[in-house]
Amino acid sequence: MGAFFSFTCGHFGTGGGLGAEIGKPASQNIYIGVKDGDRSSNEPLQCLPFYRDGSRNSAADFLVEQAGPGEQHVKPNVVAIPADEIQRDYAWATDRWKAGEIELSIYTPFSGIPDPKIATADELRDALLPGVTAELVIDNSTGTKTKTACFAIGFDTPGIRLIDSGLPGACGFALHDKLGFAAKLVENEPLLAVQRWDIAESLRDPNPIHQLGTCAGFAFEVPPGERRTLRIAIGCYLDGIVTTRIQGRYFYTRCFSSLTDVLNFALADDHFVEHRTVARQKDRELIASGLSAEQQFLIAHGTRSYYGSTQLLDVAGEPFWVVNEGEYCMMNTLDLSIDHVFWELKHNPWVIQNLLDNFIRHYSYVDEIKLDPRDAKRRAPGGISFSHDMGAHNNFSARGTSSYELAHLKGCFSFMTQEQLCNWILLAACYVAKTGDTHWLRQNRHIIDACAASMRARANPQTGLMTHDSDRCEEGWEITTYDSLDESLGQARANTYLAVKCWASWIGLEMMADLVAFEGNGVAGEHARRLNEENYAEKIANHLISSVGTNGVLPAVLEPENPGYQSRILPTIEALIYPFYWLDFLAPKHRTKLQKWMKHPLVAMLSRHTRELLNDPQRRNLFEDNGIKLSSTSDNSWM
Amino acid sequence: MGAFFSFTCGHFGTGGGLGAEIGKPASQNIYIGVKDGDRSSNEPLQCLPFYRDGSRNSAADFLVEQAGPGEQHVKPNVVAIPADEIQRDYAWATDRWKAGEIELSIYTPFSGIPDPKIATADELRDALLPGVTAELVIDNSTGTKTKTACFAIGFDTPGIRLIDSGLPGACGFALHDKLGFAAKLVENEPLLAVQRWDIAESLRDPNPIHQLGTCAGFAFEVPPGERRTLRIAIGCYLDGIVTTRIQGRYFYTRCFSSLTDVLNFALADDHFVEHRTVARQKDRELIASGLSAEQQFLIAHGTRSYYGSTQLLDVAGEPFWVVNEGEYCMMNTLDLSIDHVFWELKHNPWVIQNLLDNFIRHYSYVDEIKLDPRDAKRRAPGGISFSHDMGAHNNFSARGTSSYELAHLKGCFSFMTQEQLCNWILLAACYVAKTGDTHWLRQNRHIIDACAASMRARANPQTGLMTHDSDRCEEGWEITTYDSLDESLGQARANTYLAVKCWASWIGLEMMADLVAFEGNGVAGEHARRLNEENYAEKIANHLISSVGTNGVLPAVLEPENPGYQSRILPTIEALIYPFYWLDFLAPKHRTKLQKWMKHPLVAMLSRHTRELLNDPQRRNLFEDNGIKLSSTSDNSWM
Repeated sequence: MGAFFSFTCGHFGTGGGLGAEIGKPASQNIYIGVKDGDRSSNEPLQCLPFYRDGSRNSAADFLVEQAGPGEQHVKPNVVAIPADEIQRDYAWATDRWKAGEIELSIYTPFSGIPDPKIATADELRDALLPGVTAELVIDNSTGTKTKTACFAIGFDTPGIRLIDSGLPGACGFALHDKLGFAAKLVENEPLLAVQRWDIAESLRDPNPIHQLGTCAGFAFEVPPGERRTLRIAIGCYLDGIVTTRIQGRYFYTRCFSSLTDVLNFALADDHFVEHRTVARQKDRELIASGLSAEQQFLIAHGTRSYYGSTQLLDVAGEPFWVVNEGEYCMMNTLDLSIDHVFWELKHNPWVIQNLLDNFIRHYSYVDEIKLDPRDAKRRAPGGISFSHDMGAHNNFSARGTSSYELAHLKGCFSFMTQEQLCNWILLAACYVAKTGDTHWLRQNRHIIDACAASMRARANPQTGLMTHDSDRCEEGWEITTYDSLDESLGQARANTYLAVKCWASWIGLEMMADLVAFEGNGVAGEHARRLNEENYAEKIANHLISSVGTNGVLPAVLEPENPGYQSRILPTIEALIYPFYWLDFLAPKHRTKLQKWMKHPLVAMLSRHTRELLNDPQRRNLFEDNGIKLSSTSDNSWM
Repeated sequence: MGAFFSFTCGHFGTGGGLGAEIGKPASQNIYIGVKDGDRSSNEPLQCLPFYRDGSRNSAADFLVEQAGPGEQHVKPNVVAIPADEIQRDYAWATDRWKAGEIELSIYTPFSGIPDPKIATADELRDALLPGVTAELVIDNSTGTKTKTACFAIGFDTPGIRLIDSGLPGACGFALHDKLGFAAKLVENEPLLAVQRWDIAESLRDPNPIHQLGTCAGFAFEVPPGERRTLRIAIGCYLDGIVTTRIQGRYFYTRCFSSLTDVLNFALADDHFVEHRTVARQKDRELIASGLSAEQQFLIAHGTRSYYGSTQLLDVAGEPFWVVNEGEYCMMNTLDLSIDHVFWELKHNPWVIQNLLDNFIRHYSYVDEIKLDPRDAKRRAPGGISFSHDMGAHNNFSARGTSSYELAHLKGCFSFMTQEQLCNWILLAACYVAKTGDTHWLRQNRHIIDACAASMRARANPQTGLMTHDSDRCEEGWEITTYDSLDESLGQARANTYLAVKCWASWIGLEMMADLVAFEGNGVAGEHARRLNEENYAEKIANHLISSVGTNGVLPAVLEPENPGYQSRILPTIEALIYPFYWLDFLAPKHRTKLQKWMKHPLVAMLSRHTRELLNDPQRRNLFEDNGIKLSSTSDNSWM
């Protein structure tokens, strides 16, 4: 967690491996397998299909004619175990592969990350270990002859070297002391370290180690009637400044001294067992959830991908939480932070405070608004909002700007000023509702009041709908988070998806005002009264109700001339989640207003809208395979 | 020099760019070109062919259906200037390309690197600048309409960002603050910084900068009747520990503080002009050499490749010189160091002392020798020798071992114990002869005496030929530096190429003994007397003379049963160079013995051997195109 590091395998024939700071799996070959006979046997190595075929013979680059004709591209003597002989059990924190005598378990336990300001060094080492562990069991208990097993990584770049892990019985390899892995046999038997270009050759060769080799790992023999368990630690250690503009180091460098320290800690018996125990607890938790197998798979996959994309930085001595957006590696994309809020508040609420504060300090801005979408020149005061992200690929963007947003556009890459304003408000409201942190709320009351003023500046005073694009768009228009869909979800102005999000934001602002007022702070005053008087939430709700068709369906965009007026979108109901979520955590005395909102006709209207779309006889919001379409007019959809 | 950094272009259609710590050119697209019209023109960009075609449209990864079908692989609106319209002038330190109104000059001046122990900070900054400069002239003086020019790099990894160079009128880009480039117009006009996925689009787009873009550079308009000159600095800055085991930093980090510091220094008017002046001096020097155009090309290319492969490290406060072996990136391969000795002693003799000392301290070993090549068990005391290299790919190998050498082999990757012993002796002899540094010689006299003892242990006491393989080979045999050729040059034992190298080494040992003795140091004593008495050089010379065939040709391997006995090899004469070289620098009183050696019948014999091979009517040492074959029995050859 927080290391922006992954160990990936599982997609057959495409490799994987150790990846740091990349928006995709690594592209190494992973060789995990057994061969009949002892180390010197010529039998093929039967491996899990975690490698690409047709590897180059790098030795031939040196040998020239000694290599013989055609030997520049010989394949190693490795055979992929057929898919139908492989069984996978992909649990929340254990990924287990079984094939014949091979059983591989990869452990990726997770838990709350303790607040670094109050956590002990030991707690931080447990939480921030930049690595995962694995166990490779070779069960030859019913076999009649010796088997030789291996775990090795064929790197796509040179620079691997054997490292002395210092742990008795263990050995390891490192790529420039940045990425590495180490292993030891539970049986405390000697482990053969191998490093050559060709994994199969390395097991047989009298020189198992050639420092020029790019494929490195471990081999061990398993006599008939016995089994062996190899424990493996796989980790990274990126030292020094890793981000630009806002210069940060990995927080784990405060509690680990080196890659060797990381690998030894992971491999030490007590930690290894504890790591595995936590993983198994998590496995059981998800299994007990009652979710379908498909849902469990998605959650297990999402959890790993999420943590593999996180960075906990140390910026000038303070923690700085970053989630990188998948393949794009945009940092703390705010319209995704709001999706992650439920997870983070469950596991480590301090992370949300960290995000809120960093958006205020570094990535807030004050704009003007356009009075007419088609005229970039007529402007009026706008208000505070927040940038789409904080930069990309470890480059923090300039203060108040994102890596994503551009002027002059009406589609993808335009500004999301209104939506990000909502997202920050909703993030704050969720944080305060869940944690009851009114200290933070009082410290940031001026920001929250500025958010209310900014909401107001963008809205139509009658309908409450978002009506004014930010002047940052120039002659372009604002978009929503659904940036790769058509106008039904791409356009922000008069969008009913965004209208419900604004409605929830107003309710959140009201809730936060109440929380401080109820606590006896008499200065809520003017701003809170104005919220009550204007009641934008009510305006939006009433306008949406008045806009619903006789068929019970709300148009996507409330502009009859806009093609989005014909679109039927499901995300209209998305923002209902926030008031429901807050209700769960508020003290009874603070629930009244929210409970009233839950009974508002808007909710019934949105409920009917959703049922109409899902049960539409024309199946306009379904794909042929019954997959759900977010918008009836777009063939693009998101999970 | 010493930065292990290159900026490469020139091979059409394959890209190039900024490469740090790699054994090959970088794989970026370089866009240097012009289009008709101003920035907004839709005309294609006519570029030098320094880019690959068929770039992916990365924007489509975000846009999905907004990108439209088939747009995942649109090519940018760029046209490669045809080869026949391009003129190249590849001088020693200026690489100049002309095509139409474009003239690009890349400056890579070089000179001696001052000894860091006595150099000033300014001298070090001049010598160790981790970067090159370039000038892009767009001559529209005869044009009738505006042209728009660009210099941009399409990176193959994300993470580029605009950096503020701080220099007035300049702007720059950096990849993670490690690689970068900056530019300014000599005319001090504003320069447009561009960063998008698509270079052609970036010039036209109202948003020239998108932080997600991977292609970044500069654009400027050139009005009709005018010309513009863009000065460019291209550099790197790798901070912190960059090598393992022996932990080193780049020495340039002691005199530059950051990538911006590097780029600003390179681009500053006074330094830029000085840099260019030195480059032009070097250009004139090579042109005046009288060498053929082909020879000048090879020297110009070799010089650039050499310096691009060098690393001057700071190891615990002391300089540590490393030359990486081309694509293999082996560090300080000793059998190449001896080839570089003439260059280094001309430019910076301290580098050779650094190498000699580091080989003694870290990469010397003492072996036993095999009494019988076919019996690994019968051994006798051997002596000191040196490892083939010091590691590879920034990983220093363990003390006294190389990344290359393996046991149990009789071909490529076996040990080169005898040859590396000769190489260290010859390196020392060249250093002492050229510099007259008898202080170093006296400090290392015990090493040199140990080398003599080690030479003796490996030789046949009658013939003087190398006869005993190192026990490090186990049942294998030693090889020579010509490791990818057949037995004629691959086998060390009884090899006449190596015999002449041993002959030169003995003469070098004798010369060094004399130098100290002549200086009045009476302790040369026993070792020097023994050298004189045994006179191994004379034994080898006489044995070689007695082994020459009636045709005047010396067999490659003096073992009649060995296939190498039939081979005819040219490198037999290689080691004649060393005594000839020493003669040039020795004081007259030290020349007598060497002059006697130069008149020895061995020299006449080798002269005839060489003429017989080059003039062989059967053309056994020539390829069909008249290229020279090192060995008559191998189709592999080295420049």
